[in-house]
Amino acid sequence: MRSSLSSGGTDLHLELPATGSRRAALAGALRDAVRDGRLAPGTRLPPYRALAADLGVARNTVADAYAELVAEGWLTARQGSGTRVADRVVPGRPAARRATAARQAPAAAVVHNLRQGQPDATAFPRTAWVGAVRRALSAAPNDAFGPGDPRGRLELRQALADYLARVRGVRTTPANIVVCSGFAHGLRLLFGGRVLRGPLAVESYGLAFHRALLASAGVRTLPIGLDANGSRTTELPARGGPSAVLLTPAHQFPTGGPLHAERRAGVVDWARGRAGLVLEDDYDGEFRYDREPVGAVQGLDPSHVVYFGSASKSLSPAVRLGWMVLPDHLVDEVLRAKGEREAWAGVTDQLTLAEFITSGGYDKHIRRRRQIYRARRNRLVEALAAHAPHITVTGIAAGLHAVLRLPPGTEAATVEAAARAGIALDGLAAFRHPDATEATPHADGLVVGYAAPTDNGYPRALDALLRVLPAKGA
Amino acid sequence: MRSSLSSGGTDLHLELPATGSRRAALAGALRDAVRDGRLAPGTRLPPYRALAADLGVARNTVADAYAELVAEGWLTARQGSGTRVADRVVPGRPAARRATAARQAPAAAVVHNLRQGQPDATAFPRTAWVGAVRRALSAAPNDAFGPGDPRGRLELRQALADYLARVRGVRTTPANIVVCSGFAHGLRLLFGGRVLRGPLAVESYGLAFHRALLASAGVRTLPIGLDANGSRTTELPARGGPSAVLLTPAHQFPTGGPLHAERRAGVVDWARGRAGLVLEDDYDGEFRYDREPVGAVQGLDPSHVVYFGSASKSLSPAVRLGWMVLPDHLVDEVLRAKGEREAWAGVTDQLTLAEFITSGGYDKHIRRRRQIYRARRNRLVEALAAHAPHITVTGIAAGLHAVLRLPPGTEAATVEAAARAGIALDGLAAFRHPDATEATPHADGLVVGYAAPTDNGYPRALDALLRVLPAKGA
Repeated sequence: MRSSLSSGGTDLHLELPATGSRRAALAGALRDAVRDGRLAPGTRLPPYRALAADLGVARNTVADAYAELVAEGWLTARQGSGTRVADRVVPGRPAARRATAARQAPAAAVVHNLRQGQPDATAFPRTAWVGAVRRALSAAPNDAFGPGDPRGRLELRQALADYLARVRGVRTTPANIVVCSGFAHGLRLLFGGRVLRGPLAVESYGLAFHRALLASAGVRTLPIGLDANGSRTTELPARGGPSAVLLTPAHQFPTGGPLHAERRAGVVDWARGRAGLVLEDDYDGEFRYDREPVGAVQGLDPSHVVYFGSASKSLSPAVRLGWMVLPDHLVDEVLRAKGEREAWAGVTDQLTLAEFITSGGYDKHIRRRRQIYRARRNRLVEALAAHAPHITVTGIAAGLHAVLRLPPGTEAATVEAAARAGIALDGLAAFRHPDATEATPHADGLVVGYAAPTDNGYPRALDALLRVLPAKGA
Repeated sequence: MRSSLSSGGTDLHLELPATGSRRAALAGALRDAVRDGRLAPGTRLPPYRALAADLGVARNTVADAYAELVAEGWLTARQGSGTRVADRVVPGRPAARRATAARQAPAAAVVHNLRQGQPDATAFPRTAWVGAVRRALSAAPNDAFGPGDPRGRLELRQALADYLARVRGVRTTPANIVVCSGFAHGLRLLFGGRVLRGPLAVESYGLAFHRALLASAGVRTLPIGLDANGSRTTELPARGGPSAVLLTPAHQFPTGGPLHAERRAGVVDWARGRAGLVLEDDYDGEFRYDREPVGAVQGLDPSHVVYFGSASKSLSPAVRLGWMVLPDHLVDEVLRAKGEREAWAGVTDQLTLAEFITSGGYDKHIRRRRQIYRARRNRLVEALAAHAPHITVTGIAAGLHAVLRLPPGTEAATVEAAARAGIALDGLAAFRHPDATEATPHADGLVVGYAAPTDNGYPRALDALLRVLPAKGA
């Protein structure tokens, strides 16, 4: 069925499919015509009767289609002036955005990804995960698909309480765990949600993103020093100043050492002595290579430590699940900050991770990844020993990255040379707190994430890295 | 292998399993003993040699186990005083929290859930979803499991651009869509992220939660009036005052009418005339029962409307996925507010929803739910006509709820009677903006969510509701 509208010099060809609702087809054809500009604003449409005759449809069909488009604002109908194309329609689709096109192109030609904090994306356990989704969704009670509990699903909190006790020495109950979408979300809840207020003592090295997040919540961060025994928690004031400190005790990020045993114990004493808190970012606690993991500081005193963990390193940063283990007195306040319903963590991921943990799949995955990352670390250490023995490598007992100590003054040039060689990585300077004033033992260095490449890509990435390291005596 | 430690009057029985690492087993047994208080703070441990002999293990095994617990802070080792249990260990698990126990109990005995905004939780398409997870994860490129693009996965944005054009008349491109975790997250990004600033014009009825969220971001909300043609967008000022308005044009929430065609067109003209914005909350646009959906206002002028949608009503509020369709000039600012990486929406849900949409599973699910919810709505209308003909029901052309108009002054008592009868629902007053001053056509009313119960529970819920409605002439 075809018709040509002719109005004010505009000829319009309408063609309707042979099957289906006439009204819907006509409305769709008219809508398209208005949208793409074939029917210009102000154009008067033919009377019902005329178009109905042209198309061989009932007059009511045309009337209904016009009414629908009037209701949607495409057309206007005024007494005495018939039906017209509305003035406000802006024809055409928005032009493809140049800025976005640029954004979609890679920012630079990264050939070798040696960024810290990223597990090998090819290693996500797809098949095991799908199996866990299937089992989790078939076992879930119906209320799982109603509005979510802001604490997170009980299945997940139970699995985490058991897992963290077994693997990290965390002492807690499901009632003290609040699920979130990652460490940064946890920080936002605590500080953006005004559960805690600044100032906050932080390590002199850490992620600039976390400092920016705290700053945007109005929290001043005060760096404490760093030496061979880890962050100098002994500097924390017994009164006045910050009453909370954010630490990465198992594996200082990114410099790599563990917090010394005496400082672990001492910082808990400090928090207890002034009703303060240790915020423990256990970002890669499962990946320790040379001996049993150093347990979580949280296990020393669950009432003065907030413990944070996530699936970002163990599974993927694209799985947006994290967890906070809270002292009793903070649980209700964090839930108040989170809101009446779960607005962040999806139920499928929560149930699936719970099933993945309790079925043993999570342990198996981590065990396998630990072996692989340990081998990669060894390869890095051996390659440096063989080809760049003047470069010391530190922070290698754990985690997904190591720090290469560089000759003084060579870091910036080395990072630039790496970028030119297509290697994505960061220098230590990128992590240094802007207010850190003292000299540190980590003046010049590269943070090398050895987990990010694929198994095949890693040897080549390592070769490329060796080629950009400063020569001896540089 | 067994040993009894005897020290300072403390006898301790240690028993190690016959297999596995001796050091790990001993460390574990000691850790447990310290944790649960059997080894009290200050207790001095036996010398390596003595315990090694007792247990029949190498002396180094004991030394290593002690060292591990010292590193973890459970024990302290000082020159000359041997190894002792550290002072700061607080034995025992945190007591189960009373507040949380109370929280876990249902707040009230809800027998019949007639709350607005909740789809039937038993209707989540588990099997089809698992199938979509499987297909999506097996087809996904490896980069899906690396750090996420803050715009959201391209697969999902492409599927949404096509779907929203087809079903809601939205005109956009994947580059203009930003994935988020729901409508509230979208509002937070816009206002908390300082992309937009207040004041914001809002409808005189809406969710108090949204008003609170805006208030906490420092945004003043100014209610506009409401009449039989929908929100009185004609009241919006041509200059000064708010330059953005938040609307639910397809189905005013919760009163239920569509925004009149002239007002739809007019509000877009208003926004265009003062470089303002319409924020279109299309919270249940897919559920329209008596004719084709009213298209999105966004389709009238994509450069002056921000369109919000989510999976909360169509699938489940526990699936934390939403989407914003943005004018070109806002995309980069929203992405800046969101951050460098996806920190919210999980990749599995994103890929799965994309697959669910493109495979037709989403349409099929919505078609089926629409039939069921339409039948429930009809049943409500018929039950009222038969048993409470003095109660008018409005807002029934679309959505998951209807509004029952009550005799003046009876709303509060009816809501209370419903609560006593185990019916969860809200009165209209719960949604009224506190600054709304004028009389409205919705003075007393019940907001009845007919989608929340199960198929079996709905007839009983309806019976219970009929019993608490005010009598004629009340």
